[in-house]
Amino acid sequence: MATSDLVIGYKLNFAFYEALGNEGWETIKETIKLIPEELLTIADAKRCDVPNSADLYAKAIFALGFDGLTVNPYLGQDSIEPFIRYSEKGIFLLCRTSNPGGKDVQELETTEGRLFEVIARKAGEWNKYGNIGLVAGATHPEELKAIRKIQPEMTLLVPGIGVQGGDLELTLRYGLNAEGDGLIITSSRQVIYASREKDFALKAHQAAASLRENINAIRLTGDR
Amino acid sequence: MATSDLVIGYKLNFAFYEALGNEGWETIKETIKLIPEELLTIADAKRCDVPNSADLYAKAIFALGFDGLTVNPYLGQDSIEPFIRYSEKGIFLLCRTSNPGGKDVQELETTEGRLFEVIARKAGEWNKYGNIGLVAGATHPEELKAIRKIQPEMTLLVPGIGVQGGDLELTLRYGLNAEGDGLIITSSRQVIYASREKDFALKAHQAAASLRENINAIRLTGDR
Repeated sequence: MATSDLVIGYKLNFAFYEALGNEGWETIKETIKLIPEELLTIADAKRCDVPNSADLYAKAIFALGFDGLTVNPYLGQDSIEPFIRYSEKGIFLLCRTSNPGGKDVQELETTEGRLFEVIARKAGEWNKYGNIGLVAGATHPEELKAIRKIQPEMTLLVPGIGVQGGDLELTLRYGLNAEGDGLIITSSRQVIYASREKDFALKAHQAAASLRENINAIRLTGDR
Repeated sequence: MATSDLVIGYKLNFAFYEALGNEGWETIKETIKLIPEELLTIADAKRCDVPNSADLYAKAIFALGFDGLTVNPYLGQDSIEPFIRYSEKGIFLLCRTSNPGGKDVQELETTEGRLFEVIARKAGEWNKYGNIGLVAGATHPEELKAIRKIQPEMTLLVPGIGVQGGDLELTLRYGLNAEGDGLIITSSRQVIYASREKDFALKAHQAAASLRENINAIRLTGDR
């Protein structure tokens, strides 16, 4: 497999922008403008609401030009519909999140398996426009493996590499699909806080490039 | 029981403001300023994120002066902590939402009961600052009853009265606590869309006042 199909993109954390108050929305718009159009942009906003309001969130966020959005599935299919209806956009349902507390609810045992496994299955049932993906934290590789087993082809958005301590090698071994892709690996704090000095742009670039090299090295040598 | 302990307040739907783009945040601030300070204000933003980001959401929203906030519990205890730490604020965890699709995930059978029942129980375990409440839709009175049984004292935020067709009488019969209170009943579209003509303020007032009268009438005659 060639390494050239590795695409770099941006996941924007909406909490950071909301924390800016009045300036927040304008700052998102300015940020999006600075990202070259060919790069992937994902709004990590973890939005959710009843259909009427979900529709407003979807309109507002996609009007900004994002290619994808993270959505919390707790409100069910009709709350997801207003988002996935934007069939050119990728909708990433929270499945097994990277935080330690993620287990409290997501790993509850149901009659159909652990809750995150049920969500992974439902994501397939709800996927009528073919644009649903799943969020699966790198900090929980066994769960990532279980999710990939349920959805062999679906794109997985994987946070938790870097500061949160996720395992890159296991993420690739368990998360890549049969074609050797299907993963969007995000590293946030490791990149954006690579330096707080004047060299922050260079250091952030180096952190991202280094992660990319590591991914490629593992993909080329991996014995999945 | 006297009727004078009925308090009127405002639940602001953040999706409406986000839909305004750049103007959204400023509009929320202006709206909050127009609401007399003694009235309850709840930010219906259904926010959730990993702890680091949840902290930013909490700061941003409470800086606006809201008394309460709706939060999605899917990410577990450590994602709730940054919100409940604001111990003067009310944090309403989504439990059984008012939309039809709410059943898809919230009514899954777990080894500890239906998922929304587990959330209601966990809300009690997580409630170390005593400021957690639960969202329980009026459109599902039997589920509301089950939630009240699990949490006899906890404040329930009840959407779904009005356009969504929730049953006011059953909501009061099943939802009030032993002291005859513990409910925050919200009616959004029925009030704000009471008229689209010049008389909208009067009609909205009448719709809210009429709901208040209905609540009082049922409370005074109810044989709970």
